[in-house]
Amino acid sequence: MNYKYFDNAATTSVNKEVLQEYINANNEYFNPSSLYTPSLSVKNKIEMARETILRYLGGANKSTFIFTSCATESNNAILRNCIKRKDKKYIVSAGEHSSIYATAKAMIEEGYNIQFAPLNSNGSVNQEKLFEMIDDKTAFISLIHVSNETGAINNIKYIAKKCKSINPNVLIHSDGVQALHKLKLNMVDMNVDFYTISSHKINGVKGIAGMYIANPNKFTPYIYGGGQELNLRGGTENYPAIMAFSKAITLSNYDYDYMEELKQTFLQNISLPYKLISLENCVPNIISICFPSLRGETLVHLLEQDGFLIGTGSACNSKNTSNRVLQEIGVEQKYILGAIRISFDMNKTKDDLIELANAINNSVIMYYNKTGYKF
Amino acid sequence: MNYKYFDNAATTSVNKEVLQEYINANNEYFNPSSLYTPSLSVKNKIEMARETILRYLGGANKSTFIFTSCATESNNAILRNCIKRKDKKYIVSAGEHSSIYATAKAMIEEGYNIQFAPLNSNGSVNQEKLFEMIDDKTAFISLIHVSNETGAINNIKYIAKKCKSINPNVLIHSDGVQALHKLKLNMVDMNVDFYTISSHKINGVKGIAGMYIANPNKFTPYIYGGGQELNLRGGTENYPAIMAFSKAITLSNYDYDYMEELKQTFLQNISLPYKLISLENCVPNIISICFPSLRGETLVHLLEQDGFLIGTGSACNSKNTSNRVLQEIGVEQKYILGAIRISFDMNKTKDDLIELANAINNSVIMYYNKTGYKF
Repeated sequence: MNYKYFDNAATTSVNKEVLQEYINANNEYFNPSSLYTPSLSVKNKIEMARETILRYLGGANKSTFIFTSCATESNNAILRNCIKRKDKKYIVSAGEHSSIYATAKAMIEEGYNIQFAPLNSNGSVNQEKLFEMIDDKTAFISLIHVSNETGAINNIKYIAKKCKSINPNVLIHSDGVQALHKLKLNMVDMNVDFYTISSHKINGVKGIAGMYIANPNKFTPYIYGGGQELNLRGGTENYPAIMAFSKAITLSNYDYDYMEELKQTFLQNISLPYKLISLENCVPNIISICFPSLRGETLVHLLEQDGFLIGTGSACNSKNTSNRVLQEIGVEQKYILGAIRISFDMNKTKDDLIELANAINNSVIMYYNKTGYKF
Repeated sequence: MNYKYFDNAATTSVNKEVLQEYINANNEYFNPSSLYTPSLSVKNKIEMARETILRYLGGANKSTFIFTSCATESNNAILRNCIKRKDKKYIVSAGEHSSIYATAKAMIEEGYNIQFAPLNSNGSVNQEKLFEMIDDKTAFISLIHVSNETGAINNIKYIAKKCKSINPNVLIHSDGVQALHKLKLNMVDMNVDFYTISSHKINGVKGIAGMYIANPNKFTPYIYGGGQELNLRGGTENYPAIMAFSKAITLSNYDYDYMEELKQTFLQNISLPYKLISLENCVPNIISICFPSLRGETLVHLLEQDGFLIGTGSACNSKNTSNRVLQEIGVEQKYILGAIRISFDMNKTKDDLIELANAINNSVIMYYNKTGYKF
């Protein structure tokens, strides 16, 4: 079946040019650590890819970008790098992706003092409460740049500046997986110490991601090995995937205004009562929306029958019976269960969004009729 | 230039069928954690790939195989999982790959009691000395199955049995990256608790590897995330690479006797004095050989001019000025500097090995003539 895919926040299809880059790079299969010329060529191209990405991110002087296997690895590595002392305090937002949240939970069990900063109603961090949590023992703060659940944008530039004015020693990490290609990024401007991005959310191949590190001297490897990645991440470099990532990052065609039009078109065509989580200050390509007294999972399956693939919040959370982030926001339970996440890219048209809205209208009404729910 | 490649122990070219499997799998780009049918299909195929590999490895009941991004990650994860208490003792062989060796060194700095078991002259572990090191505080032993430097085989089945007879609580890990497709593997028979393998050394794609875990209850994730990989390794699954790995593992055509013929053909055609490190009890596809008073690096470059690509010991060690493993073996310094590593696969013929031997003879003699060295 040829589905209409509205779950780009979970993963994306691979761009043809990017896949071709991957395929071509497999011809140069040489280990970049070997000493002959074809290996040096591979090594040089990896360094060029690193430069391309670092330039795209607006990296600071002496900063670097280290390739990892996925954003989850980057996030684990950064947390383990920055959270090392039991006499210090650490803060992550309650709206972090599970790769931060689950690591923080595990580290709390290990005895680290990690606190969760509360959220606003759109899923962004509550800035006032965050700033109140910071004191002179606070050493590290991790904040998602764009919520993978709701699309809410954390104003990292403002927040990082304010946090560092309260405590200049605090290190700031932001998980930018959902921000890449959606927001203009500049690491110097945002003044972050660490930043995570991933390839498979921007039509790149899976299995490659990375982390921006403002000061490589402040980073200890999480994966030790043969001195690869400037001695900061061991393991034979995934050269074809690196080349594909470097290609994908240059191919952004995101038009914020057009995406906002699509979002508004969708919302205008929903003819039923709903609760919108993705309120103001969200990237328009992610819409978190809830229908009462209906399980999001049910709606996913009904829509699939009509040829539409949508999500129920983060794919990484889909196994859980409830939605952690929406609970943290304070959404009522009858709405949380009915939460769906619609996300899309520039290949979609207004007609696609109208079609989707109509399919949702029909499915929900059909379900309400069957169950006798009155709205 | 069309090189003759003799560095398969560093990395391998990708098999065409395997690459095609990778390319095809990219059509199913859905996140396996999502709830719609195309995602469930991806999820099922990942489970089938896991089963294929587990069956190939002869996994025990209740054992599992967890996909990781590279053997280096697997080795780090296994060491961190098994080395947790400062009142216990841990042993790794002095001949381990840098992903074990560097991790062990870092953990010794962190205060863990990790000792290195000495080596025999071919690079295998000295069994008697290893057994003497084990006492009732020993909790974990890590031994490379086939040395990536010399091809020496550690008899894991015998060693694991003996170690567990001395202390039944000891956990055994073996790094099988260079053993996969070269030796018949059976996890139950070898009685290992953990075993590492990688795709890019068996003509699979880069960026995918894994670890056999005999008892998943004895494993804590090293990378936390959205509950992927049976809750043992977070991060969106690299589905195309997993499918390619599962394909690659079934395509072994290694013929031990044929490879031994190639090795002997090579050695018979070397007409100069040399020191052979890869003595008896080594896989025949790796030959570690040293010429006196000549830098291995020089020979690599001379041979490249003749169209042959060879290694100087492990690619992961190539940045170091000397060779750690050969030093541990006790090879004299004048030979260590002249060490080269020749490794090959079933696509090579006797003629290829004769050509290589002749090229080495010519290059070494030319170099000796130039430098006035007499042998």
